[in-house]
Amino acid sequence: MNSLMKVLITGASGFTGRYLIKHISEKCASAKNRPEIYGLYNSSKPKSSESCRFIKADICNVSEIEDLISSVKPDYIIHLAGERRGSYEEQFRLNAVGTVNLLEAVRKHCNKSRILVVSSSAVYGYAGEMPISEDNPLRPVGAYGVSKAAGEMAALSFTRQYGMNITVARPFNLFGPGQNEDFVTGKIVKYTGEIIAGLRESFDLYSLDSGRDFVDVRDAVRAYWDIISSPVFEEKCRGEVFNIGSGDAFTVRDVIVALEIITSHKITVNLPSEILPEIVPTQKSDITKIKNTVGWVPEYNFEKTLTDMLKEY
Amino acid sequence: MNSLMKVLITGASGFTGRYLIKHISEKCASAKNRPEIYGLYNSSKPKSSESCRFIKADICNVSEIEDLISSVKPDYIIHLAGERRGSYEEQFRLNAVGTVNLLEAVRKHCNKSRILVVSSSAVYGYAGEMPISEDNPLRPVGAYGVSKAAGEMAALSFTRQYGMNITVARPFNLFGPGQNEDFVTGKIVKYTGEIIAGLRESFDLYSLDSGRDFVDVRDAVRAYWDIISSPVFEEKCRGEVFNIGSGDAFTVRDVIVALEIITSHKITVNLPSEILPEIVPTQKSDITKIKNTVGWVPEYNFEKTLTDMLKEY
Repeated sequence: MNSLMKVLITGASGFTGRYLIKHISEKCASAKNRPEIYGLYNSSKPKSSESCRFIKADICNVSEIEDLISSVKPDYIIHLAGERRGSYEEQFRLNAVGTVNLLEAVRKHCNKSRILVVSSSAVYGYAGEMPISEDNPLRPVGAYGVSKAAGEMAALSFTRQYGMNITVARPFNLFGPGQNEDFVTGKIVKYTGEIIAGLRESFDLYSLDSGRDFVDVRDAVRAYWDIISSPVFEEKCRGEVFNIGSGDAFTVRDVIVALEIITSHKITVNLPSEILPEIVPTQKSDITKIKNTVGWVPEYNFEKTLTDMLKEY
Repeated sequence: MNSLMKVLITGASGFTGRYLIKHISEKCASAKNRPEIYGLYNSSKPKSSESCRFIKADICNVSEIEDLISSVKPDYIIHLAGERRGSYEEQFRLNAVGTVNLLEAVRKHCNKSRILVVSSSAVYGYAGEMPISEDNPLRPVGAYGVSKAAGEMAALSFTRQYGMNITVARPFNLFGPGQNEDFVTGKIVKYTGEIIAGLRESFDLYSLDSGRDFVDVRDAVRAYWDIISSPVFEEKCRGEVFNIGSGDAFTVRDVIVALEIITSHKITVNLPSEILPEIVPTQKSDITKIKNTVGWVPEYNFEKTLTDMLKEY
């Protein structure tokens, strides 16, 4: 008599969290023992859902996290919670110390659990025009990249020190339907929608030339699940890092041009008189490792994602 | 009319800090304009000294550090302060956030200052038997190595983002006269002295086989000063990382054997019945880069340092 598998997702109310819960529950809908999904959130309360039990908890509150882990004892943990804004101190607190709090609790109460720590391509900084592999040195710029790098180094240290089943994912620039204005693509799609609706004539951007590897959030959550549920997890994923990207770089200008084609509308963008040089002018992923290890490749293409985003802007 | 050069040292009351103040004041004794040295300390008050003005300040107190930097406006800063013990949270606070606090203050008030951030070989973790160059990936094990890696990544990010004159030093295992029992060599020398004095018969160690690159603290402080005072600092050191080591690996057993030869005494060590495998079994530095850039090489050899340590145990 098997007990149900338990999956814990931190950052469950975020953009990625919502897609991840949907993906797991759909993917496992026909499974004999559908997993129980626990979704941790802190700031914004998610809409109630049949497929997930939401729990409010603060990743920085050690005893709260420990109580939670010791009572749930999840089999799989996908750690999305983090902070993209604020001071170094705030981002270290969430992205590095918060990750450690979670891992310490797992170490004490269910040290065989599989854990996927979701980091960011921001840890690479600028690495040239070539595709970036997981072996590239980490040269983050700014508090977000530095604190995410600290969090993933702590995670890999737990594997080295205690043999825990931890894997790090480094998603490149996520985009997808429902993404908000905090992200450049979310912002452009929203304002494009407003231009088409006649609500505005133009909008402001800082520059058009920075290149990024855009990956659909629906592809990314599939990658997270493919890694953590892989039959070769302990053998080939534990202690490893996996890039999750499209393998292509598109500029902000490419986003605008694609939207102009999709919508047949002219999109007017206002740029500053003096454009400052970008510290990270471009980034493109090498995704050979995840492809060869768990067989994941992205399925959505750039235009398809933008089209879907426009429908839901 | 030149104003005096000002040198600020954080962690001034520590083992390295004391040697660094001594080195700078001796090295610059005959200089036309001897630099003013400011020594920051927090926990233990240093003995008063003619060559250094000591100031109590907490690196984690943002306004305290900002007031200090804005009033002193140091030309050179050598950042030694940090924490080797305690939880991840405590060590992140001192080693990462504390470093950021210092750099933020410098950015605001004297952004052309030269800064040497002293990190640690602990950021490398285990990298095999071969000499470790600065390009080796960072694989720290435990809170100290992870938090030091976070601190140096933050420092290098300030150079990338704001063009600040920051260099990172990675000292390997420091030893030297006056080192306390918190460090393995300090502990072995102290107990060896006590055995010779007839105060004890033996002492306990965890293992004899871990190999480390031992570098004399007097060599290390010379390296710090050679880097920060180099005429090629802005051109060849800024944004760079330098290993500071001997280029050799000695085991704990080698330390014991050397002390037996130096003292002509048998040293009895008690080991646990079961010796656990070391996560970092050995470490050895490649010091080509500092040699080629500022011409530094170590001058003390292993036996000389141990002999000097025994005199002052």
